Amino acid sequence: MNKDRLIYLPLGGAGEIGMNCYVYGYGAPGKERLILVDLGVTFPDMDGAPGVEVIMPDIQWLAERVDRLEAIFITHGHEDHIGALGHLMPRLGGKPVYARKFTANLGRGKLEEAGLASDALRVVEPRPMVIEAGPFKVQFMPLAHSIPESAALIIDTPAGRIVHTGDFKIDRSPVVGEPWDDAAWEALAAEAPVKALMCDSTNVFSPAPGRSEATLAGHLAELIAKAPGMFVATTFGSNVARLKTLAEAAKAAGRQVCVMGRSMKRMLSAATETGVLEGFPGTLTPDEAQEVPRRNLMLLVTGSQGERRAAAAALSRGKYLGFEMREGDSFLFSSRTIPGNEKDVIRIWNAFSEMGVTVHDDAGGLYHVSGHANRPDLEHVHRLLLPDMLVPMHGEHRHLKEHVRLATEAGIPGMVAVNGTMLDLTGEAPVAVDQIQTGRIYLDGTMLIGAMDGVIRDRIRMALNGHVLVTVILDEQDEPMGEPWVELMGLTETGRGGRDLTETMEADLADWMERAGRKVLRDDDRMDEELRKLVRQVAMEEIGKKPEVTVVVSRLVAE
Amino acid sequence: MNKDRLIYLPLGGAGEIGMNCYVYGYGAPGKERLILVDLGVTFPDMDGAPGVEVIMPDIQWLAERVDRLEAIFITHGHEDHIGALGHLMPRLGGKPVYARKFTANLGRGKLEEAGLASDALRVVEPRPMVIEAGPFKVQFMPLAHSIPESAALIIDTPAGRIVHTGDFKIDRSPVVGEPWDDAAWEALAAEAPVKALMCDSTNVFSPAPGRSEATLAGHLAELIAKAPGMFVATTFGSNVARLKTLAEAAKAAGRQVCVMGRSMKRMLSAATETGVLEGFPGTLTPDEAQEVPRRNLMLLVTGSQGERRAAAAALSRGKYLGFEMREGDSFLFSSRTIPGNEKDVIRIWNAFSEMGVTVHDDAGGLYHVSGHANRPDLEHVHRLLLPDMLVPMHGEHRHLKEHVRLATEAGIPGMVAVNGTMLDLTGEAPVAVDQIQTGRIYLDGTMLIGAMDGVIRDRIRMALNGHVLVTVILDEQDEPMGEPWVELMGLTETGRGGRDLTETMEADLADWMERAGRKVLRDDDRMDEELRKLVRQVAMEEIGKKPEVTVVVSRLVAE
Repeated sequence: MNKDRLIYLPLGGAGEIGMNCYVYGYGAPGKERLILVDLGVTFPDMDGAPGVEVIMPDIQWLAERVDRLEAIFITHGHEDHIGALGHLMPRLGGKPVYARKFTANLGRGKLEEAGLASDALRVVEPRPMVIEAGPFKVQFMPLAHSIPESAALIIDTPAGRIVHTGDFKIDRSPVVGEPWDDAAWEALAAEAPVKALMCDSTNVFSPAPGRSEATLAGHLAELIAKAPGMFVATTFGSNVARLKTLAEAAKAAGRQVCVMGRSMKRMLSAATETGVLEGFPGTLTPDEAQEVPRRNLMLLVTGSQGERRAAAAALSRGKYLGFEMREGDSFLFSSRTIPGNEKDVIRIWNAFSEMGVTVHDDAGGLYHVSGHANRPDLEHVHRLLLPDMLVPMHGEHRHLKEHVRLATEAGIPGMVAVNGTMLDLTGEAPVAVDQIQTGRIYLDGTMLIGAMDGVIRDRIRMALNGHVLVTVILDEQDEPMGEPWVELMGLTETGRGGRDLTETMEADLADWMERAGRKVLRDDDRMDEELRKLVRQVAMEEIGKKPEVTVVVSRLVAE
Repeated sequence: MNKDRLIYLPLGGAGEIGMNCYVYGYGAPGKERLILVDLGVTFPDMDGAPGVEVIMPDIQWLAERVDRLEAIFITHGHEDHIGALGHLMPRLGGKPVYARKFTANLGRGKLEEAGLASDALRVVEPRPMVIEAGPFKVQFMPLAHSIPESAALIIDTPAGRIVHTGDFKIDRSPVVGEPWDDAAWEALAAEAPVKALMCDSTNVFSPAPGRSEATLAGHLAELIAKAPGMFVATTFGSNVARLKTLAEAAKAAGRQVCVMGRSMKRMLSAATETGVLEGFPGTLTPDEAQEVPRRNLMLLVTGSQGERRAAAAALSRGKYLGFEMREGDSFLFSSRTIPGNEKDVIRIWNAFSEMGVTVHDDAGGLYHVSGHANRPDLEHVHRLLLPDMLVPMHGEHRHLKEHVRLATEAGIPGMVAVNGTMLDLTGEAPVAVDQIQTGRIYLDGTMLIGAMDGVIRDRIRMALNGHVLVTVILDEQDEPMGEPWVELMGLTETGRGGRDLTETMEADLADWMERAGRKVLRDDDRMDEELRKLVRQVAMEEIGKKPEVTVVVSRLVAE
C-alpha cells in the first residue's frame, strides 16, 4: 500500500470559475513531493462578501506541507491564475515560481506591489525547455487564450504524462501570440501517451466551434470607421490582441488612440516590454488627446464589467481625465458580461444613453469572441490526445459534470473532482482518495481573514437588519445609573403610529431595568441577552424588523 | 395659455423596468383631472437596498393632488404593475380601481393582505365597455402577455385618443386568453385616429419576431416524456399558460402534477376562480404526490429567478415538503433569467448538478418565450395604429431611446420621457412641460421609508466598512470615568503584527482622552468627531479599512 502514487488536489477553481489553484504530488502516500499550478483570486460581491477586496483559496493544507513543495507554475497572467501571488507567497516559503516572460512580468509587479522580493520568479521558454521539480519534469506548451502567452503544462511524472491545459481556445489566427498548432499537439501525443488530461471546462455548454480573434477585425473596422464622433471601446485589459485589433481599426479610420485605465496600460506595457506585442500604434496621453478632433480619436478604456472605479464607469458618470461623452459619440463593449455583473454594465449603458451616446455590445456576436474552447473544440482535443483519463477543471460543478459526460461518450473515463477532493491518478482511472478541508480567504482592507470567521456574516446581517446599540451604566451596587441609551444605525427613526423608535426602546428598556432584580443586573450575560431580546421585540412590533443588537454594560467601580 | 391640455407623467416604469406608475391628466394647466395607470413594485438587491422587502414609486406628487384623481386602472396582474396596491392605496383616498376579473382577483388579495377594504375594486369587461372617469373614457382592450387578461387601455380624451399598451406581445395562439387580433386593432384604428401611442419597450432590442406560447408545447412534451425520473419545472408563477402547457405535457407523459409554492398556487386558483383557466389537469398535494412513483410525477415549483425562499431553491438545498431531488431526476428552468439574478439561478443549477440531477434551461430557445413584443412586432403595431406620436414606456433609458429611434424611422414623432418628466400631448408632438421630483419608497420590515432617507445608505456602509462602537463615560466635572470602551461588529479582531484591534483602539482613545483638555471633553460634538477620527485612523493603520463609527458619550449627573 505504500507504493508511490500520483495525486491531484484542486484547492481552488474546481467547482467554480475563479481562484485557480491545483496541487500535484508524486511519492509515497503522505510523503508526495508537490508542485502547485496557479495561484489565483476571485472577486467578491455585495451578496457574499461586502467590503472585501479580493477572494483567494485557503492554502492551509499546502502551507502545512511547504517543505514538500518543489515549485510553483503559473499558466498565464489572468487574475484568477496569478492574482494571489503577492498575498500568498509569504506562506509558500520562497519556492521558485515558473512562468513565461509576459506572465512573469506581471507576477513581478504583483510581488513588488506587495513589498516582496521577486527573485523567486523564473522566466521559462516554451517546450522543449524542461523544468525539473523533484519527480516532475514540466514543459510549457503555448496555447491561445484571451491574454498573451497562455500555456498548457506538460507534466511528466514517473507514473506518466499529465497535460494540464490551463485556459485555452483553439485559435489558428489569434492576432497576438502563437496560433493553435495541430501538428505540434500530434507530435506531443506521439512522443508519449497522455495519462491524464486536466482540461478547461468553461465553455463546455457552447455548442458551436469557437471563433478566432482574427474574425473580429473586419467588423470592428467597419463599426469604427462609420462612427461619427469620438469612439470609446472597452474590453478586458489583458486582451492585448483585442486592444491591437481595436487600435489598428482606429488607425485605419484616421483615429489616434488614447488608453485610459491602470490595468490596461499595465498590460500594454508588459506586452511591449516582453516583445509579445509589436506594431501597436503610438498612443496619446489624455492631455494630448484633448487637442485631437473627436472624429479622429479613439479611447481604449478599462471597465468592461461595469467596475465602478474603472474608466468606463467614470465616463458614464461625467468628466474623466478631461473627457466627457456627448451626443454622437459611440461606446463599444468589446466583451461579454460575466454573470453577476449585468446590472453594473447596464447602468453604464443607460447613463451613456442619457448622454446621447450610441452604445454597441456583443449581442450580434460581431465584436467579441470567447477565450475558452467550446464543446467541439474540447472534443477535438480529447481526440488529439486520447488520454487515459480526463479530469475537468476551471468550471462550476455543472461544467465539470458535463465535461465528464462528454469525455465518457468518447470512451475516456473521467471524474468530477471539486476543490478539496484528492484524486489518485496512478491507476487506469482516477480514484478519490481523500477529502481535504478547503475554503476561501478574504483580503479585507489589508488583512487576510477566513471566510468562516464570522466577520463578513456580521456585516451582511447589519446590512439586512440594521444595528442597534444599547448602553447601560451600573454603579458598584449594580444599580442603574440613569436610563438605558439607544442608538440606531441603518434603521428608520419612526415606528408605528409615528412613535420615535429610539424613545420607545429606551422606555421599554428602562421599565425592564426597573423591574429586573439585583440578581439579573449583576449578571452581564443575562443582561446582554435580555436587553437584546427586548430590543428585537420592540423593533419587530414597531417596524417589523429584527435588528442586530450590541449591548454595552458599563460598571463603575470605586477608584 | 390656460387652454385645457392633455398631460402624461410617469412616476415609475419609464427609465427602468419595474414599478410601473403612469399619470394622465386633462384640463386647465395645474387643474387637470387625473387618472393613474398601474401601481407596481420593483425588487431590491444587496447592492442597492439590502434588507428591503420591496421598492415602489414615490407618489408624493399624486398624493398631494388626490382630490384631482378620478380613478386608477390596472392593466394586468404582474407585481410591477399591481404590487404596490396594498401599500399605497391608503394615500390615494379610496378612489375606484378598475381591472379585469383575473387582475381584480389578485388586487383584492393584495388589499386584504394589507388589511384594507377591497370595495374600491371594480371588475370591468373588455371593450366595448367604457369607464368614464372625469374627462376620460377608458376601455380595456385584451392583449396577450405572460399572464392572463393583460389589457391595453384605450383612453379617449377631449384632446384625442391615447392607446396605452401595457405589457404585451403579438401572440396569435397564446394557449390561455385572447389571441392577438389584427382585425380588432384595425377596427380600433378605423374608429378614431390615435393621437398618442404609449408603448411597451422591453424587447425593442430583440430583432426577430416574437414566438407564440403555443410553439413550446411540442418541445416541452418531448422533453418531459423522455425524462427518466421525477420531472421538476419552474417558471414565473403568473404564467398560467405555461403552467397549463407543462401540466398537459406531464399528463400526456403519464405524470401527475403537484404544485409547490404559494405564489404559483395563488395564480392558479385566481385563474380557475375567474374562469380564465379551464381544463387544467387535477393536481396532487405534496402528501399525495409522495405515493406516486417518481417516473409518474411532475412538480411545478416557484423560484425561476433563484429566489432563496422559493421552492426551487429549497429543493436545491435538500428536502422540501418531503421531496428530495436525486440522480436521474430532471429540472427545467422554463424561464429566462432577469439580469441581476444570474448568480442565484446558477447556484441552484450547480446544487442540482451535485445531486446528479439533469438541468435544462432555455439556452436553446425551446422551453421559453418572452411575454413582450420584439422589434418587428412593435413596428407592426406602429403601422397598424399610425399614431400622431409615440411615447415609449416600460423600459430602461436605452430601450426608450431605441424605441423612439424606431418610431422616428417610420415617420412617427416620439420622445423619451423618464420618470418625473411631464409631457403635454395636446399638440402635434409631445412637449416636455415640467420636471417633477420623483423617487423610490422602500418597504422595510413593515415601514415605508424614502430611498434618500439615509437609512439604507448607512446599512450599505456598515456592510462595506464594518461598525465600531465607542462608549465613554464622564462625570459631572467632565472627567472621564474609566477608559473608553470599544466594540467591533463586522471587523477582524486582529490587526497588523497580530495586535488585538480593540485593545489598540482603546489604548489610543484613552491616551487621547488623557491629553484632551477640559474644553474638549465638555463638548459632545467635538468629542464625537475626534474619537471617530481617531478610531478610523487606527483602523486604517491596523487593518486598512475606515469603519463606520458610533460614539456614545454618557455624562453622569448628580441625582
